[in-house]
Amino acid sequence: MAEQLPEYRVPLKDMQFLLNEMSEGNHQDDVASEDLFFILEQAARFAEEELAPINQAGDDEGCVFDNGKVTLPPKLNQAFRTYAEAGWMGLSMPEEWGGQALPERLSSLVGEILTSANHAFSMTPALTMSACRAIISHGTDEIKQTYLEKLIMGEWTGTMCLTEAHCGSDLGLVRTSAEEVSDGVYKIKGNKIFISSGQHDAADNIIHLVLARLKGAPQGIKGLSLFIVPAKLQNKAGVWNKNNAVHCIGIEEKMGMHANPTCSMSFEEAEGYLLGQPNRGINAMFTMMNEMRLGASMQGIGLSERSFQKSLAYAVERTQMRSLGGVKAPDKEADPIIVHPDVRRMLLTQKVFAEGGRALGQFCANLLDESHLPNADKERVELLGFLTPIAKGFLTDTGLASADMAIQMYGGHGFIKETGAEQLFRDGRASTLYEGTTGIQALDLLGRKVLAGQGKSLLSFTKMLHVLSKNTDSESLADLADVLGGYAKEWPELAKQLGAKGMGDFEEVGAASFDFLMYSGYATLAYFWLKMAAVAQDILDGKRHPKGDGFDRDFLDAKVKNARFYFERILPRARAHKEMMLAGKGSMMNISEAQLIG
Amino acid sequence: MAEQLPEYRVPLKDMQFLLNEMSEGNHQDDVASEDLFFILEQAARFAEEELAPINQAGDDEGCVFDNGKVTLPPKLNQAFRTYAEAGWMGLSMPEEWGGQALPERLSSLVGEILTSANHAFSMTPALTMSACRAIISHGTDEIKQTYLEKLIMGEWTGTMCLTEAHCGSDLGLVRTSAEEVSDGVYKIKGNKIFISSGQHDAADNIIHLVLARLKGAPQGIKGLSLFIVPAKLQNKAGVWNKNNAVHCIGIEEKMGMHANPTCSMSFEEAEGYLLGQPNRGINAMFTMMNEMRLGASMQGIGLSERSFQKSLAYAVERTQMRSLGGVKAPDKEADPIIVHPDVRRMLLTQKVFAEGGRALGQFCANLLDESHLPNADKERVELLGFLTPIAKGFLTDTGLASADMAIQMYGGHGFIKETGAEQLFRDGRASTLYEGTTGIQALDLLGRKVLAGQGKSLLSFTKMLHVLSKNTDSESLADLADVLGGYAKEWPELAKQLGAKGMGDFEEVGAASFDFLMYSGYATLAYFWLKMAAVAQDILDGKRHPKGDGFDRDFLDAKVKNARFYFERILPRARAHKEMMLAGKGSMMNISEAQLIG
Repeated sequence: MAEQLPEYRVPLKDMQFLLNEMSEGNHQDDVASEDLFFILEQAARFAEEELAPINQAGDDEGCVFDNGKVTLPPKLNQAFRTYAEAGWMGLSMPEEWGGQALPERLSSLVGEILTSANHAFSMTPALTMSACRAIISHGTDEIKQTYLEKLIMGEWTGTMCLTEAHCGSDLGLVRTSAEEVSDGVYKIKGNKIFISSGQHDAADNIIHLVLARLKGAPQGIKGLSLFIVPAKLQNKAGVWNKNNAVHCIGIEEKMGMHANPTCSMSFEEAEGYLLGQPNRGINAMFTMMNEMRLGASMQGIGLSERSFQKSLAYAVERTQMRSLGGVKAPDKEADPIIVHPDVRRMLLTQKVFAEGGRALGQFCANLLDESHLPNADKERVELLGFLTPIAKGFLTDTGLASADMAIQMYGGHGFIKETGAEQLFRDGRASTLYEGTTGIQALDLLGRKVLAGQGKSLLSFTKMLHVLSKNTDSESLADLADVLGGYAKEWPELAKQLGAKGMGDFEEVGAASFDFLMYSGYATLAYFWLKMAAVAQDILDGKRHPKGDGFDRDFLDAKVKNARFYFERILPRARAHKEMMLAGKGSMMNISEAQLIG
Repeated sequence: MAEQLPEYRVPLKDMQFLLNEMSEGNHQDDVASEDLFFILEQAARFAEEELAPINQAGDDEGCVFDNGKVTLPPKLNQAFRTYAEAGWMGLSMPEEWGGQALPERLSSLVGEILTSANHAFSMTPALTMSACRAIISHGTDEIKQTYLEKLIMGEWTGTMCLTEAHCGSDLGLVRTSAEEVSDGVYKIKGNKIFISSGQHDAADNIIHLVLARLKGAPQGIKGLSLFIVPAKLQNKAGVWNKNNAVHCIGIEEKMGMHANPTCSMSFEEAEGYLLGQPNRGINAMFTMMNEMRLGASMQGIGLSERSFQKSLAYAVERTQMRSLGGVKAPDKEADPIIVHPDVRRMLLTQKVFAEGGRALGQFCANLLDESHLPNADKERVELLGFLTPIAKGFLTDTGLASADMAIQMYGGHGFIKETGAEQLFRDGRASTLYEGTTGIQALDLLGRKVLAGQGKSLLSFTKMLHVLSKNTDSESLADLADVLGGYAKEWPELAKQLGAKGMGDFEEVGAASFDFLMYSGYATLAYFWLKMAAVAQDILDGKRHPKGDGFDRDFLDAKVKNARFYFERILPRARAHKEMMLAGKGSMMNISEAQLIG
């Protein structure tokens, strides 16, 4: 009888390894790993029992738009209510407003779990948390008192209204206008598109954060302000049931994520209130944006993990052909496909993307926790800024590659909806588009985070690579450590070359940016893989004492072996990106538009 | 006003370039390129006017299954009737049965055009042609007389019934049985899945080619025979209206290709007739399979071409941000995104995959035409066998990469059904799965076509690379010629190394096969890109006189420039595949199944 693997099982052991053995941040919050792990187990149970089982039905049913109202698939609605009522929305929110003030290194793992279990479900909580963070950072006390508790309890939910039909990447073009009509009250007018959870029936009120331009404000990005626009306003009796002039005028038919509504919103002189300073909306937005980019990177990790598990379940069960190394399952008419090297190549690729990505994500979450401290180290904050576009751009890309491999793993069955492999890809496909496309991340990384900062953050990271390479003394990892040492040296040299080229010609930066991002992603994951392998090898060799009960030898040995797979079978891709990034803009820019059209 | 590009425009100029300047095969059929081109223009008109406009509606409407009957979207049904009645089904079929006996180098281009215009539409004609080819190769005169004319007229259509629920790649496991009940009449019993066009309402009869096992035949692949099973039999009066015991018991809900039904078929002691020799069904199947693999490679080309055009149309129209090189469209609030280097990277990647793939496809089609000649050169036939898994595996992979880039090009709009970008990916996603997955192509290439044949075909191809490299004397292409010369030397050396490793351990072949396939694909397209560029440069330099009216300088100059893009920005990926293929099986196979499950 073929082993039956569950639909989705939270990778708790790996998460515990990260929390216990890989978290070296400055944890002034002082929450013990064991306490975090206990909460993680509760999240795991909820995700496995409540969210994963309704993922496919949500895709089938989708959301319904009727006369301005959006209905979620009923099971998704119920799951959101259960989630909110259990207090999960407040996980990393301040206690003052009903949250539990737990660190980001926990909530980021929960974010991954939600995506793995049910990508569509994860959207409303994520957006609401982002809205809360913007209000916490930029709201007046009155605004905080009015909105935070309701949002954190999940009685209300939040949105981000940025995009308009004619502008997404280029927010400087925003046309939605705002005009002050009385002290502190503004009329917001305009249309926004792609508003996730812009209208739905799982909360009593929806609080929109809207990017708009004050009358008379400058053109471009420096003339934008951020406004709070509740769907329902308080009536004279203080009850929040008075309709504001904001309407959902339609929902998009999308490739995936059918269980989360993507709304077109019309603000028809809706009442709104300034959040933060006038004309500084983009700054307020960027606080959120950076955390949302990290959130999107968690989606990439979750997608790789779920795709791996989906593929693995099939690989142990599906029998087809005999092993090239001789019959492995003589009692069956064919061997399970997990015996085939190329099947293992795909499985291990998904696995090293998931676990390597998780280690990077966890490192970023630790930096985020540090950045929230009053005495936050500027260099560490900048390191987070450097790693954010890598995490977002690279991990969403590898997440989609993993999902695509899940389809491939299933052969013809991968094309069929019933198996659920193709839904992973469809649901995940937006992750390289929203919160800044991969191209935008690439420009942010090379242009802003590396070149504009004279490579300081890059150097502080490659120093970590260098130190790890020098300090990895296990014989079994010596060759990998040498390879990483090479990247520690080469990476800043490449940035320098590109910087020199880009000095006289910004287009050279644009032409190299995508390959620089991908190179950076592969090099970054190499660091985390060697780090995990070195820790695991030290525990195996008795040189390091793990926290708590430790880990079984199979798990630790797999970390060492998977690191080798990563270095031998994935990292070489960086060689190609190196060559391509150095090729210059010529072959792209010398051809005329007319020649492209033909 | 932004330039409005059409939904799809057949790349006739590029096709003419291939027909006129790149077709160096042994054309005993002696059909003039101009005549072929004239027909191509008719196909283009049909595809642009009739097929492309109904592509999106077909996806929306899908096929309907009701009580054993399948209804196509009405416009697709009508388009098939129009196509068949215009005689397109018989393009490359023998005149004896109503065809026009035109060469494959024409019909392969038509195949590409159909996929670009409407992937779902292209399926029924392609399958019917394959069935005809099997009947032509293996049928008795009586069988030919009975079926060919109706199929070639498109009054009837054909299917291939291979896959069963428990076996796809591993056809040796087929369980469908056949028993002779009277002279030449067999009862076929079993269930088949994934039968494209297995039931539909656009033809009077459907002729199934069914792989089944004769009672008492050996187990495995050498016990399979091929049978003809018509959905409707002749009644006593000679009219084909008597139902055979074959039923469609359902159609799949799929990721894409909604306008083509994927049927589950039940053969309930259905009447069938042997096609070819008993227990030699797999040989008969492989005749078809190889041509179907070439057909799938055309789909990959068509997908790259359509994705390029889809992306280009948006890139010239959508304005967002200013060029890094300074404002390009001062009259607009932002520049069209085609000015951005990373947008051009994506566009040119799609373009070099489409045009490079087309050149490879056309070369294969020429070889196929040669192989049909009575005095066919064995070495050329083997060269086709060598190139077939490369064309199928690599061009479907690059086709999907192109479609994925089309989604990326549209940003958030790429995720929305309305724009049509995501449909390209969904429709095309099966192309790396059917007719043998990419993993199967990779094993076929390295194991059977290269190593089992002592690398003979590879050497005959790398000799062509070597000769082209030596003979390319344009200064502008000298560096590219050098690079190609390096591949001509390295490629067989890699095969030799892998062969030595694989001699004692077949799993080493499996472990290297995917990267060897991808390396081969990149190297193969490098040959065709240099070849096209060298021809174009010679015409530009007046060293070569083009046929007919020739080509405008912009077109020829673009060929030279795009070759450089290919060598600088795409070919370096082969470096990574080289390193990965040589890494050995260890990091994949040393990890236990238990460790993978965790």
